[in-house]
Amino acid sequence: MHPVVIARWHEIVRSHDASALADLLADDVVFASPVVHTPQLGRALTLKYLGAALKVLNNGSFKYLNEWHGAHSAVLEFEATCEDILINGVDIVSWNDDQKITAFKVMVRPLKAINKLHELMARQLTAA
Amino acid sequence: MHPVVIARWHEIVRSHDASALADLLADDVVFASPVVHTPQLGRALTLKYLGAALKVLNNGSFKYLNEWHGAHSAVLEFEATCEDILINGVDIVSWNDDQKITAFKVMVRPLKAINKLHELMARQLTAA
Repeated sequence: MHPVVIARWHEIVRSHDASALADLLADDVVFASPVVHTPQLGRALTLKYLGAALKVLNNGSFKYLNEWHGAHSAVLEFEATCEDILINGVDIVSWNDDQKITAFKVMVRPLKAINKLHELMARQLTAA
Repeated sequence: MHPVVIARWHEIVRSHDASALADLLADDVVFASPVVHTPQLGRALTLKYLGAALKVLNNGSFKYLNEWHGAHSAVLEFEATCEDILINGVDIVSWNDDQKITAFKVMVRPLKAINKLHELMARQLTAA
């Protein structure tokens, strides 16, 4: 069984519903990117980055491979192919007692995948 | 409580005991690097890469931040500082019914950390 927050996250990935994503994030949520060290603070910035990531990664090839659940956090391992580069990564998601996401961290491998994701995210954020 | 394999892994990280590590790996263990796509197959190659990673990362700054446990796998989040670069990463460890590690995958962030780890691992593997 998925924790409530993770079940809602999976529904957002399926539906591409950005308004549902805004409702799932705490006001003071922190987004940690696979590329940049500095955390992105707050719902607006987190929505911007997660929205762009969903557009970039959530093509037909995207799938979750495995999950590990804690009391107030979970790790979701995914893979996707973007422009012929296989991107393997994890989402590390933490939430509060109100079932809102308080932290969302992404790591990807290998190096080629990080470089490709960096390039595609920059393009998506510029276009948005 | 830690699964048996994870408790043994933590003991190896504490003790720097490479012979205990060899005993913890299945013959056909697969190592997946944060840098390179191609998996490294078998105990000898996995020992080589994990041994080098332990030397590079396991300085006084290394610590585990969080863990998530499944039935036959776990995710361990770590951080370490190497040459002034903060390396944040996960070990994704899978094991079999004999309590031997069958897969060990590493991802790190941010991009600067991957580049630093790549550089230090190359140096360590050349020196070994």
